[in-house]
Amino acid sequence: MDLNDIGIIAKKAAFDMLKISTVQKNEVLKLSAEALIKNIDFILEENKKDLDTAKANRISNVMAERLTLTKQRVLDMADGLLQLVKLDDPIGEVIDMKTLPNGLRVGRKRVPMGVIGMIYEARPNVTSDAFGLCFKAGSAVILRGGKEAINSNKAIIKTFKNAFKGIINPDVVQLIEDTSRESSIAMMRMKDYIDVLIPRGGAGLIKAVVENSLVPVIETGVGNCHTFVDETAIIPDAVKIIVNAKTQRPSVCNACETLLVHKNIANNYLPLAIKALREKNVVIRGDENVLRIIPDAVLATEEDWRTEYHDYILAVKIVTDIDEAVSHIQKYSTGHSEAIVTQNYTNAEKFITEVDSAAVYVNASTRFTDGNEFGFGAEIGISTQKLHARGPMGLKAITTTKYIIYGNGQIRQ
Amino acid sequence: MDLNDIGIIAKKAAFDMLKISTVQKNEVLKLSAEALIKNIDFILEENKKDLDTAKANRISNVMAERLTLTKQRVLDMADGLLQLVKLDDPIGEVIDMKTLPNGLRVGRKRVPMGVIGMIYEARPNVTSDAFGLCFKAGSAVILRGGKEAINSNKAIIKTFKNAFKGIINPDVVQLIEDTSRESSIAMMRMKDYIDVLIPRGGAGLIKAVVENSLVPVIETGVGNCHTFVDETAIIPDAVKIIVNAKTQRPSVCNACETLLVHKNIANNYLPLAIKALREKNVVIRGDENVLRIIPDAVLATEEDWRTEYHDYILAVKIVTDIDEAVSHIQKYSTGHSEAIVTQNYTNAEKFITEVDSAAVYVNASTRFTDGNEFGFGAEIGISTQKLHARGPMGLKAITTTKYIIYGNGQIRQ
Repeated sequence: MDLNDIGIIAKKAAFDMLKISTVQKNEVLKLSAEALIKNIDFILEENKKDLDTAKANRISNVMAERLTLTKQRVLDMADGLLQLVKLDDPIGEVIDMKTLPNGLRVGRKRVPMGVIGMIYEARPNVTSDAFGLCFKAGSAVILRGGKEAINSNKAIIKTFKNAFKGIINPDVVQLIEDTSRESSIAMMRMKDYIDVLIPRGGAGLIKAVVENSLVPVIETGVGNCHTFVDETAIIPDAVKIIVNAKTQRPSVCNACETLLVHKNIANNYLPLAIKALREKNVVIRGDENVLRIIPDAVLATEEDWRTEYHDYILAVKIVTDIDEAVSHIQKYSTGHSEAIVTQNYTNAEKFITEVDSAAVYVNASTRFTDGNEFGFGAEIGISTQKLHARGPMGLKAITTTKYIIYGNGQIRQ
Repeated sequence: MDLNDIGIIAKKAAFDMLKISTVQKNEVLKLSAEALIKNIDFILEENKKDLDTAKANRISNVMAERLTLTKQRVLDMADGLLQLVKLDDPIGEVIDMKTLPNGLRVGRKRVPMGVIGMIYEARPNVTSDAFGLCFKAGSAVILRGGKEAINSNKAIIKTFKNAFKGIINPDVVQLIEDTSRESSIAMMRMKDYIDVLIPRGGAGLIKAVVENSLVPVIETGVGNCHTFVDETAIIPDAVKIIVNAKTQRPSVCNACETLLVHKNIANNYLPLAIKALREKNVVIRGDENVLRIIPDAVLATEEDWRTEYHDYILAVKIVTDIDEAVSHIQKYSTGHSEAIVTQNYTNAEKFITEVDSAAVYVNASTRFTDGNEFGFGAEIGISTQKLHARGPMGLKAITTTKYIIYGNGQIRQ
């Protein structure tokens, strides 16, 4: 099908979505989850085709792992849809309603975005997740997954459409089956049909979408996160926090990558912190001042301050004061999550004010930057951009608002 | 100066802005307003240079009119800055603060955008307005005005910088003096230094920025606005509303361009409405059904439904029911402002739900879509995009938020 036709159909489906109640949306999500479970064999067979092709093309182990569906993974996809049933419907909320002096009542109503486009890599589970999130948020979705997963994606979409055919407009979800680079670029130009484009995947994909898209993009970013231990920190708390921020799950974007330590606490704090970190197999890369205290640490280079290790490696630097800590963060941070550990009230507030990141912590681990931890339920991703949505994005992040105005004949003077 | 240097300096100024209080911001706005008044002669002299060049280059009368500064216009610019002093500071507000089960307190704090870029045409008053708005919203601003106004812009910026030199970092406002097309394109690529780009000007400028910018854009749009008079409308209200929406100020984006009338009320309503509109010199372009009732109206073409006249012209169409009205709006609207005039509760709610525009009215004139009318004070523009800001944009629209999290040693389990 021509991409423009897909766009036209999606707009129509988005309009139909405006008339669907929360009860109906939840019913469709349940039917979709049940259909996934009923069709596990079919989905796994189609996934096998993708895996066979992938093996013939010698894709990497990491990629093959992401591409592989198992019975459990399909059950998890179904469970993801059922989790969405439990979440509050973001649509219909009215905020800031007030009555103007002339009697007009003006407020903002939360409404669906319309048509959401998703561009992602060869992870078939994203096909199900993306449909569920967009659907619960009241939008139609156009999916464009990686070419390696095309048979799996077609199977999942077919399963969904069969599940709700006759109940709702099945075009609420559409898959672009042409997985050429051209189709991806063409999708980024569909300004007339797609209201927002969300890339999900590696830094390369996100960069390509941001640079080429005429459709507005919601960008999920990378995290080079910092923890600053101030001179007044409670040492056992500061040890516990850096160990958690570095090692509780090192592969994720809210894990801490650089520890900054105030010079006046370094001699007391660093030996304890590094002992605890090394017990978790963390390799320390310190600046010269750190090496004076921890002589067997590796000397850090400029590159270390910029690196998101996603691994059991921590860069450590001793700083003169909070201003040097803030400057360092300003220079190297990706604007994701940063923490200060301090008992000093002024410094806590200064850090909150001066650090320009999506999430800024006082006396807690950066690992909390997460939609579930913040109580949003489902998470679309974590935005490090400043427009529209910043930080963990729940369902609200993929909605918009409109002004609604109730009058009784008012005209402007 | 090299554009990257301007970017680096702007980032530094944006950081300094984080430490400025509301009192200081208001003080700087007052000093800037006073400086404009004191330097009227200098500013008008420099504006004269621009006008002389413009005349030599035979620019259009409309353009010359926009480029021209008078004593009154400079006073108006100063007054605009003083109006901003009166507005609430959008920065620092904390919303959605809650305590999680683990004791973490999580909320969102409204913070400055950082560095805002403005690209605009040869209107020197925008130089002053844009500085004032961005400054009150806590951001540094990089201005890139039209080449025809370069001397006027330099004079205004010099006046401001002299006014607050020694009080704040004068780099909070910078002018790009290279007015080549290349500098404009280069500015749109300054993703590392500019957080958001706001084009102000004609549709061509806005389109060029949206298509070329790698920096996120806030787009202010055009308005092909509709009023639908339902069969249950109170006829005198419906007459008053369309006359106001069309003629109170026809040149602006929230003026009504197409009137849709339910077939069951057309015979009673249209003669009265069109008589009142013609008294205001409005030319009627109707479809065939309208011409049966108003034989001397001009026959509308397809083009009329798409046109933002910005003039004393109104397209009129008779529709079978609300569904046809909504379909027409869906097809031709630019998503700005639409109104229904009705006494039917179900239709009022249906219109609100199904019309996908930034502002949707029941029983009122579309002319109210305006930051001042909605009570925001200053208005940056009216957004017809769905991301970040939709509808009239006040100071808040050029801010962002960050999550702030207060703990006492929490780590993630």
